[in-house]
Amino acid sequence: MIDLNWEEEPVGDRYNLDWLVSVDDHVIEPPDVWQSRVPTKFRDRAPRLVNDGTSEFWHYEDLRIPTPGIAAVAGKSREHFSPDPVPYSEMRPGCYDPVARLEDMDRAGILASMCFPTFPRFCGQMFHEGEDKDLSLLCVQAYNDWMIDEWCGAAPGRFIPLMIIPLWDPQLAVKEIGRCAEKGARGLCFSENPVRLGLPSVHDRNRYWDPVWAAAEEASIIVCMHQGSASYRQATSDDAPQLVTMAWAIGTMSSGALLDWLFSPVFHRFPGLKIALSEGGIGWIPYYLERAEQILDKQRFWAAEDGHKLDRQGNVVARVSMEIDPLTLDVRQLFRDHVYGCFIDDQAGLALLDIVGGDNVMIETDYPHSDSTWPHSIEYAHKQLEGLDDETKYKLLRGNAERLYRFTPDTPPARTG
Amino acid sequence: MIDLNWEEEPVGDRYNLDWLVSVDDHVIEPPDVWQSRVPTKFRDRAPRLVNDGTSEFWHYEDLRIPTPGIAAVAGKSREHFSPDPVPYSEMRPGCYDPVARLEDMDRAGILASMCFPTFPRFCGQMFHEGEDKDLSLLCVQAYNDWMIDEWCGAAPGRFIPLMIIPLWDPQLAVKEIGRCAEKGARGLCFSENPVRLGLPSVHDRNRYWDPVWAAAEEASIIVCMHQGSASYRQATSDDAPQLVTMAWAIGTMSSGALLDWLFSPVFHRFPGLKIALSEGGIGWIPYYLERAEQILDKQRFWAAEDGHKLDRQGNVVARVSMEIDPLTLDVRQLFRDHVYGCFIDDQAGLALLDIVGGDNVMIETDYPHSDSTWPHSIEYAHKQLEGLDDETKYKLLRGNAERLYRFTPDTPPARTG
Repeated sequence: MIDLNWEEEPVGDRYNLDWLVSVDDHVIEPPDVWQSRVPTKFRDRAPRLVNDGTSEFWHYEDLRIPTPGIAAVAGKSREHFSPDPVPYSEMRPGCYDPVARLEDMDRAGILASMCFPTFPRFCGQMFHEGEDKDLSLLCVQAYNDWMIDEWCGAAPGRFIPLMIIPLWDPQLAVKEIGRCAEKGARGLCFSENPVRLGLPSVHDRNRYWDPVWAAAEEASIIVCMHQGSASYRQATSDDAPQLVTMAWAIGTMSSGALLDWLFSPVFHRFPGLKIALSEGGIGWIPYYLERAEQILDKQRFWAAEDGHKLDRQGNVVARVSMEIDPLTLDVRQLFRDHVYGCFIDDQAGLALLDIVGGDNVMIETDYPHSDSTWPHSIEYAHKQLEGLDDETKYKLLRGNAERLYRFTPDTPPARTG
Repeated sequence: MIDLNWEEEPVGDRYNLDWLVSVDDHVIEPPDVWQSRVPTKFRDRAPRLVNDGTSEFWHYEDLRIPTPGIAAVAGKSREHFSPDPVPYSEMRPGCYDPVARLEDMDRAGILASMCFPTFPRFCGQMFHEGEDKDLSLLCVQAYNDWMIDEWCGAAPGRFIPLMIIPLWDPQLAVKEIGRCAEKGARGLCFSENPVRLGLPSVHDRNRYWDPVWAAAEEASIIVCMHQGSASYRQATSDDAPQLVTMAWAIGTMSSGALLDWLFSPVFHRFPGLKIALSEGGIGWIPYYLERAEQILDKQRFWAAEDGHKLDRQGNVVARVSMEIDPLTLDVRQLFRDHVYGCFIDDQAGLALLDIVGGDNVMIETDYPHSDSTWPHSIEYAHKQLEGLDDETKYKLLRGNAERLYRFTPDTPPARTG
């Protein structure tokens, strides 16, 4: 159980800048997560790890899903990165073992870490796609129990609990949020574009997601949208090199998510709700905030969908169902009040930190993925943050994350790195 | 005819910063562009302006295409912007009359202007979509003749000639490039994503576009890709407000175009070729250049499509058909040598000008579109450029455009604005 008594950000004569809190790392779930938790009758269709001698994969319902090598590269040099499946025996134990992870965190100056799922995918969409939704719900609950009780439970002052939700049923999601909030959950995984998962958008007029937002707001649970959580990467063309698709993906999908939320009615209906653009980068944010303001400034009189309909003389002849009023919309203020940008390595974004906002940015280390700064995370962070004042460094390294996630980490251990 | 003898950028004791050269404005083609130029037998299917008493539209083949109001808002306040069709009688004459345009340019401090087409769309894709390709070619030629001889011919030291090409036939395009280069063309309109127009990508293994690049390189013609020239705007969802789609469009499509070119073999095969991201903005460029470098740094050993195939031990077992070597690719140098970013109003990009590069950026005024800074273009430009040194201001306002397009404008007239 996580201590719910969050303390004010520590201030003193000087800031401890030797450690960081990473709001985006990843677990590779150990083989027993589901098998030891779902009732016996579901076990043959719940995720179980199979090694048939030639390959290793998760068997779930009728699917066989290996762990891609690129998801577990910690300790490997980039010449050895590969998307080919990797068995647990070739992974660094920190991928799946919280005690080994703590050693790796100590080495890299990572005081606390919030971890996203691997087999369930970044917002648990694997279970949303499951055929047997009774099993899906059990799998969501099993993951959350394991994440909160076992992974975070191994060192409650070092791991920030992040839950997944049953995306296919908002009422079930509300129950699961309540259940996990009781156990200390601080964030929930959501999709950067639920439409790509066959789910309603954040603009949905039927307010499909409202119960989820209400529950998250009530429990002060942060809505975390990890890049890739739409299970969709657009290619510019079929014959474009994969490198183009990879370089394009994060900024493009995350900017779409940001604009969706800023122009949706959600923040207006749930003023306490906060979102994090996990592994979304920050360098693109100033451009898109500015562009959103320009579009509003120049087009809001006519382009609000179903909104201000003008006659030829510019008189408003109809003003209908757009739920927010574009004439008073202040996207920059909404960003400040509700959105947190997250970066691993982002020179452009840090150079424009005044625009993004020093209170709205958090650092990530992305262990054990290929974009990770591990094992040199804290040293690398200081290289990036050079020139900022100590208070701002502290906010980006720890302070903003600790405040947003109401998390008081353990007193830093002696550095081993 | 445009003077082909380009002179070195003028330098002296001080720079004349009273005027700018805009590399993105628009013409609304006058009614006679095609009717007075195509042979008689084609005239009933060539574009002709029809006003049937209730509406005004272009009739071309079997299509009826009005001019959207949003494409001709010069002189209107934003409360009156509307996408509803607008007749010529309600447009400011500067939209379609070069002499009236010059007066408007004088008023706003616009010393020279390069104009994109309206009815043919931003890269002439209207004629690519035409059914009768004999007529299409005649229409392309008629547009180019009108643009170079009449529009630019009205003031050869004030208008930079920009041509369209027959996209459907590279050999015809080569001929048209040669023909127009003789008459002074300095740029050609291309698509930010030709795949969306049913055409091969810049990665095409059959090198569909190579003759075009060779001809453009030979004639020092700049490849200009205007935002929207793929005739495609992605929406995040069907129910997202139109404002989201509009705010997302430019950065997203232009960044895809930039990455396509940087990872294509084109710049390596045509080292003299240069491209401009017309109305593409610049604020997103630092983030995507950095991201491209990160992806290369970490993923190039395995992710080059069909490229470096590694075995489990990291040995290269195959190294095949990716035409460029990702191990030596320097995207930032390619950008410096080949790419020009263009901005109307871009605080984020100007704040990171050192990263984008002061030699690689040009200003635009976008007359008569809704994003235009007209009639306060030069004043607005100076507000944006505040804090830069005079040499850099001069480069952004004029110098880079004059050098890139080999264009020596008239000696500035007395300002009337």
